[in-house]
Amino acid sequence: MPSAPPEYASLNDIPGARELVGYRINAGAPEEPVRVTLDVDPKHANRVGMLHGGIIAMMLDAACGFAASKHFGKGEALTPLVTLTLTTSFVAGAKIGSRVTAVGTVTGGGRKIAYASGELRDDAGQILATAQGSFRAIKYEVEI
Amino acid sequence: MPSAPPEYASLNDIPGARELVGYRINAGAPEEPVRVTLDVDPKHANRVGMLHGGIIAMMLDAACGFAASKHFGKGEALTPLVTLTLTTSFVAGAKIGSRVTAVGTVTGGGRKIAYASGELRDDAGQILATAQGSFRAIKYEVEI
Amino acid sequence: MPSAPPEYASLNDIPGARELVGYRINAGAPEEPVRVTLDVDPKHANRVGMLHGGIIAMMLDAACGFAASKHFGKGEALTPLVTLTLTTSFVAGAKIGSRVTAVGTVTGGGRKIAYASGELRDDAGQILATAQGSFRAIKYEVEI
Amino acid sequence: MPSAPPEYASLNDIPGARELVGYRINAGAPEEPVRVTLDVDPKHANRVGMLHGGIIAMMLDAACGFAASKHFGKGEALTPLVTLTLTTSFVAGAKIGSRVTAVGTVTGGGRKIAYASGELRDDAGQILATAQGSFRAIKYEVEI
Repeated sequence: MPSAPPEYASLNDIPGARELVGYRINAGAPEEPVRVTLDVDPKHANRVGMLHGGIIAMMLDAACGFAASKHFGKGEALTPLVTLTLTTSFVAGAKIGSRVTAVGTVTGGGRKIAYASGELRDDAGQILATAQGSFRAIKYEVEI
Repeated sequence: MPSAPPEYASLNDIPGARELVGYRINAGAPEEPVRVTLDVDPKHANRVGMLHGGIIAMMLDAACGFAASKHFGKGEALTPLVTLTLTTSFVAGAKIGSRVTAVGTVTGGGRKIAYASGELRDDAGQILATAQGSFRAIKYEVEI
Repeated sequence: MPSAPPEYASLNDIPGARELVGYRINAGAPEEPVRVTLDVDPKHANRVGMLHGGIIAMMLDAACGFAASKHFGKGEALTPLVTLTLTTSFVAGAKIGSRVTAVGTVTGGGRKIAYASGELRDDAGQILATAQGSFRAIKYEVEI
Repeated sequence: MPSAPPEYASLNDIPGARELVGYRINAGAPEEPVRVTLDVDPKHANRVGMLHGGIIAMMLDAACGFAASKHFGKGEALTPLVTLTLTTSFVAGAKIGSRVTAVGTVTGGGRKIAYASGELRDDAGQILATAQGSFRAIKYEVEI
């Protein structure tokens, strides 16, 4: 973790849920928002044939959480954290075949607790969902 | 949809995100809560090696959403719906290798809007997460 | 209600909780955000001597709710509504003696359901709280 | 604060927002839930003539927050805290002239962060609102 470069180049090598779902994380430069992108496939559908709300929550958790990680790490590292709470508003449905992007930015907080807000938009820029979360830095250092 | 039996026997045949993640839905009898179960695998991990919060939100969305579907369908059908909002509190981490179960129950609402609350627990009964969501019945009928 | 002018001039004549707490509502022109302002007084304090979180939630509910009313009324009326859900993140404390302003804007929705997000800031522009809410238009017309 | 008895007898002497709105807090015995009661008066109304959602959020914040204070204080004191996040679902309206009670219980957490859930009910026991919040203990000791 201490060796994570400002470009956070290895983020998409993290195994687990990110790989299972297939979204891509672009942590951006220190002062930029985090972007999480997904090409919506039938495997991401809910029972009414749209992108599953749980996956939308997942992308917004990732975008807001990585923004909080950058905040805690002061642009020099991605501090490990846990999500305390996450609220998602499902403003409009996302279609199979579309590309959607979640953007997360920190709204405030300190060394241990941070708050972030996020938006999920389609390629035309329409808001599909909004979220806000709270996050807590943890000491447990992990390889990323 | 109108032909869905009270046992909702075919729920786990729904393709898409449920199959991708691998949780199982037990809608229960009309008066029972909905139960959503997952055997937590490394493919469900976040970057600190625990069950990803997005998957927790997904399971609680499913448990609360199916409870709302039963409420709208008055125990005779699973009315299609959309999630309006979902809030999740991540109370404790869920370990890889454990089995976790989300239980959802309706707290109120009418013919078009319903509210549901849910809890995710491990096999020892400890609360790992709580959620509350709001849901809207939609007319669009789908095969389940 | 149908006669409410675009300027919504009479908003601050509404009795009840708004008068009890003493915040002022500026619904703004149809395309502008709604602003809700409070001069924080000892009577608004919580037990640690800061602005009570419940009053912060109240102001953000008002700012987001009036934004949704304008959305439903298409800038020509303030459609009555109910709040379905409201989430508030308390980013920083607000001091007694300060002036705080909540700004609410609609993020999406249709004729019956609308979503809005809000921010509470102090006079220096620092974010003190963020919120997002969902709202439902109701047919019951009231005098405002 | 260190001298606060387990009965928390002086809670309703706290000035500020509690007195302004007029709700009463019964922190109960250490193992009991916290109860917050209000006799709904016209001064508590919103613009459609029901109990204002902001006051509902306030009562649930108080019920959940005092439950968290008891949790942090291990039943021997009311530890000062701040609310991090609060989500409220407005399940049904509360009428002027009714008595409503919010009950708050802790769902989990540790020494610094606690989670609590609450319900607001009328005298007939019907759920009017549900809430869940996250809270952080602070070191700043106050007189209560």
